[in-house]
Amino acid sequence: MVDFRTSPARYRHWRLAVDGPVATLTMDVDEQGGLVPGYELKLNSYDLGVDIELYDAVQRLRFGYPRVKAVVITSGKDKVFCAGANIRMLAAADHSSKVNFCKFTNETRNGIEDASQNSGQTYIAALNGTASGGGYELALACDHIMLVDDRSSAVSLPELPLLGVLPGTGGLTRVTDKRRVRRDLADYFATKAEGVAGKKAVQWKLVDEAVPRAQWQEQVSERSRAAAQSSPRLAGGETGIELTPLEKTRTDTAVTYTHVSASLDHDRGVAEITVYGSGADPATPATPPTPTTPATINDVHTLGDKFWTLAVTRELDDLILDLRTNEPEIGTWVLRARGDAANVLACDDLLLANDATDWLANEIVLYLKRTLKRLDVTSRSLIALIEPGSCFAGSLLELALACDRSYMLLGSDPAATISVGAMNLGPLPMGNGLTRAQTRFLGDPEALAQVEKRAGEQLEADDAQRLGLITFAPDDIDWDDEVRIAVEERASFSPDALTGLEANYRFAGPETMETKIFGRLTAWQNWIFYRPNASGPDGALRAYGTGKRARFDRKRV
Amino acid sequence: MVDFRTSPARYRHWRLAVDGPVATLTMDVDEQGGLVPGYELKLNSYDLGVDIELYDAVQRLRFGYPRVKAVVITSGKDKVFCAGANIRMLAAADHSSKVNFCKFTNETRNGIEDASQNSGQTYIAALNGTASGGGYELALACDHIMLVDDRSSAVSLPELPLLGVLPGTGGLTRVTDKRRVRRDLADYFATKAEGVAGKKAVQWKLVDEAVPRAQWQEQVSERSRAAAQSSPRLAGGETGIELTPLEKTRTDTAVTYTHVSASLDHDRGVAEITVYGSGADPATPATPPTPTTPATINDVHTLGDKFWTLAVTRELDDLILDLRTNEPEIGTWVLRARGDAANVLACDDLLLANDATDWLANEIVLYLKRTLKRLDVTSRSLIALIEPGSCFAGSLLELALACDRSYMLLGSDPAATISVGAMNLGPLPMGNGLTRAQTRFLGDPEALAQVEKRAGEQLEADDAQRLGLITFAPDDIDWDDEVRIAVEERASFSPDALTGLEANYRFAGPETMETKIFGRLTAWQNWIFYRPNASGPDGALRAYGTGKRARFDRKRV
Repeated sequence: MVDFRTSPARYRHWRLAVDGPVATLTMDVDEQGGLVPGYELKLNSYDLGVDIELYDAVQRLRFGYPRVKAVVITSGKDKVFCAGANIRMLAAADHSSKVNFCKFTNETRNGIEDASQNSGQTYIAALNGTASGGGYELALACDHIMLVDDRSSAVSLPELPLLGVLPGTGGLTRVTDKRRVRRDLADYFATKAEGVAGKKAVQWKLVDEAVPRAQWQEQVSERSRAAAQSSPRLAGGETGIELTPLEKTRTDTAVTYTHVSASLDHDRGVAEITVYGSGADPATPATPPTPTTPATINDVHTLGDKFWTLAVTRELDDLILDLRTNEPEIGTWVLRARGDAANVLACDDLLLANDATDWLANEIVLYLKRTLKRLDVTSRSLIALIEPGSCFAGSLLELALACDRSYMLLGSDPAATISVGAMNLGPLPMGNGLTRAQTRFLGDPEALAQVEKRAGEQLEADDAQRLGLITFAPDDIDWDDEVRIAVEERASFSPDALTGLEANYRFAGPETMETKIFGRLTAWQNWIFYRPNASGPDGALRAYGTGKRARFDRKRV
Repeated sequence: MVDFRTSPARYRHWRLAVDGPVATLTMDVDEQGGLVPGYELKLNSYDLGVDIELYDAVQRLRFGYPRVKAVVITSGKDKVFCAGANIRMLAAADHSSKVNFCKFTNETRNGIEDASQNSGQTYIAALNGTASGGGYELALACDHIMLVDDRSSAVSLPELPLLGVLPGTGGLTRVTDKRRVRRDLADYFATKAEGVAGKKAVQWKLVDEAVPRAQWQEQVSERSRAAAQSSPRLAGGETGIELTPLEKTRTDTAVTYTHVSASLDHDRGVAEITVYGSGADPATPATPPTPTTPATINDVHTLGDKFWTLAVTRELDDLILDLRTNEPEIGTWVLRARGDAANVLACDDLLLANDATDWLANEIVLYLKRTLKRLDVTSRSLIALIEPGSCFAGSLLELALACDRSYMLLGSDPAATISVGAMNLGPLPMGNGLTRAQTRFLGDPEALAQVEKRAGEQLEADDAQRLGLITFAPDDIDWDDEVRIAVEERASFSPDALTGLEANYRFAGPETMETKIFGRLTAWQNWIFYRPNASGPDGALRAYGTGKRARFDRKRV
């Protein structure tokens, strides 16, 4: 079972050093530190374990280091920055592991871009040696790419010529759409295993600058100082907050945190997930209830990671990663929320009153945004059940809006209600750049305006249905059957077709680099990974390094 | 070998009737008329052969019927409009056939939308019975959907619940992005094999109106009359032009038309395609040379389908379809153009001087646009070779710009040249809504402006390279080797990875429904088609209709 929880003291592959406003993340992969046996992580190649540490470091930099305004990613190895995903690992992994691995690394790279764009922590890739494949894709996620100009260091995407697969973590999309490399040069680049170096790499826009080794240290320092100086990182106290270890109990049938619990039914293929609102009975009865909603942002700083919104976001984040990776046969997630909607909305309001000025409020909202996006790209059917005593309001209403379908109990006493809040109207956009409500009411601004008008109200099922905020509103006579059938039916469908259906329906409307990466690029990569030309006994992934040439079915599809 | 050439006299599945400004296309599929043995086309289900006729009819309506301003698509069967793609056919087809079939049907449906939007021929789907799967997707391509309200006729997308695949011809994208069906309702709809009928179908925006049988004929007439009345179809003479049979010679190693030829090298996996400019030596020496460029648009009407631009477009269109379908192992297409650039540009200019007022000029430009788009979504590596005597100018320069890479001979005497013309600067957008030049210089408006400034000039290789219009400019010492290596190398790569690479690189920048359909939806469908859950011995496609339930690997990916 893969565990996504770690901390710097346990890192085997990364070093985090902070010097005033500049942090340096040094990749120095332990060859023997693979997550599973069977491969050596040579040349700073990585597996999921290496990326779990990177994700942890990026998160901790945001929450723990309010004064850090620029982050340099570089290598601790001689002559190589990073050789990308480990090929032996990829060749041995089953299909769903490969896909999950790519998804998580993509999310981490998107998180790096989010830090540069929205946290005032600007990432600089200092390529002190060759960056190949996923190594170059990691650089592409940074705001600025420096490549040492030493007649041997290059950037490259050798996946196609060497492995018969695509660069799987956004490389193709970022080369054309972010760095604006001309498509025919990009084509040539992606077929050239040795890559492109020096001035040509700059001229083709593959990197921002090529720096001779003699000026390397000085130039890296200068770039990072300049980035830190122009950073808009918010104020709000010099002291970071510590992300303490999550309290988590994991059995074969249940995952329990303080504010989130999931019961796993392997026979039915269903996880029943409950999120507890601020002040609600906690999932872990032994845990004292959350303090009531803090009054000021200073109280949030004092509470640190015990502040409800941050705590529940961390738990959800870990749960999504856990179930995605460790429970691939649990194809349907049923989501409930229990507690007092007013408390949820009060936490939301406190954050939104401060997120333009206080770094911690900003970070919590951004983290919530990223976690909800993680849910959006999770290949599981999502069904929200809205019952009396639930608290789908504001930030937690986003969970219901992220679902493929929702059911709300009609006419009960007390009534089930939902509430639209400020969190639903802007600060938590999806990957397509729209809020979940905007995506829901695409092309129907009148319907969206009606919903906005009712913000703050406790909406009962008939109202919620009229407004289009929920899918179905059965009464208590129909509820059990309708819900049971919906869940059973979902489990009876082809898991692959559901994945494709959801990947298409969840992102209506405009496209962004993010939706292209998760929608288009990922789908092609999934297909290619699955084909014998890559993964078959004579496929390129298996043949690599054996001295044998791959044998291809030459039919073009 | 599949032949895409047909004509109304040979149709087995469609009837075309014209009544003043309204044409009616009646689908009445001959059960025994399948393209290959092994299945019966029951309930107006279709295979590639049925769709070839539909494509032909849509084309002939545009060129042959200047007075037709509305087209009604309806069914000749009782109680069923169309049951979609034939499932036995799909279950038996190999992977590349399935993918090719979906691509062609997608292109035909996009062509229907193009006719509604740009030709003033508005398509109305008159669903006089149930429209399932591909049948409903055909309706979705129409501008207006009418469904008979008779307590049995419904619209449905039963692919996921019944077959374990996705609706493969744009259904998911058009439901959310064109018709703006709410995503949770769309989700429910796509899991409900029996579909949605009557008022609910209208309320959910799946159809535009549900009409009782008693008013059906009258309402269909009224809607089509109204559409015809508000149509902006252009003037330019009442007489259509006939699309006469293409002169084509096809052997195992060559395809020859009047203005286009292709030699096929199966060992190397390469097709060498030459397009002959207006007035150049024709590909078929027996054919008399094309008349010189006509002086006025009236001359174009007189020449009809012998007018060079229309003739060469028809031939290219047929060649693309032929090679795509019949030569899947020829993975690289090398494109050359021979002739006088001035003649090409003169034809372009004549068309563009008239395409806002003359229906035929408009139709020819639109057809050229659609044919170039067909090239863009063709899963073959495209390499342009620009040599002395070539005529990559204006409309033919688009061929080079559509290529993944281009090589232009430097410093020869006479020099190889290319010319930018008005056709490169607007009228021939790609599926992403941008011209090929805009896509090429995405995010670099300065480079694009430089190119526009040089329009009309004969640009030699050094200029063309500086401007970024070509990829490489080897001199005659390097030419043979560089070109040979590029072609050989391409043939050595994984065909699947090349398909994925090209599908990502060719559509940088904004996304549209079209790019979503060919980029995202198609990629997911390809993956799903290929998985055992659909196509394996126990997969849903094979199990359908046998009484056995499909057995799924329940792992979610």
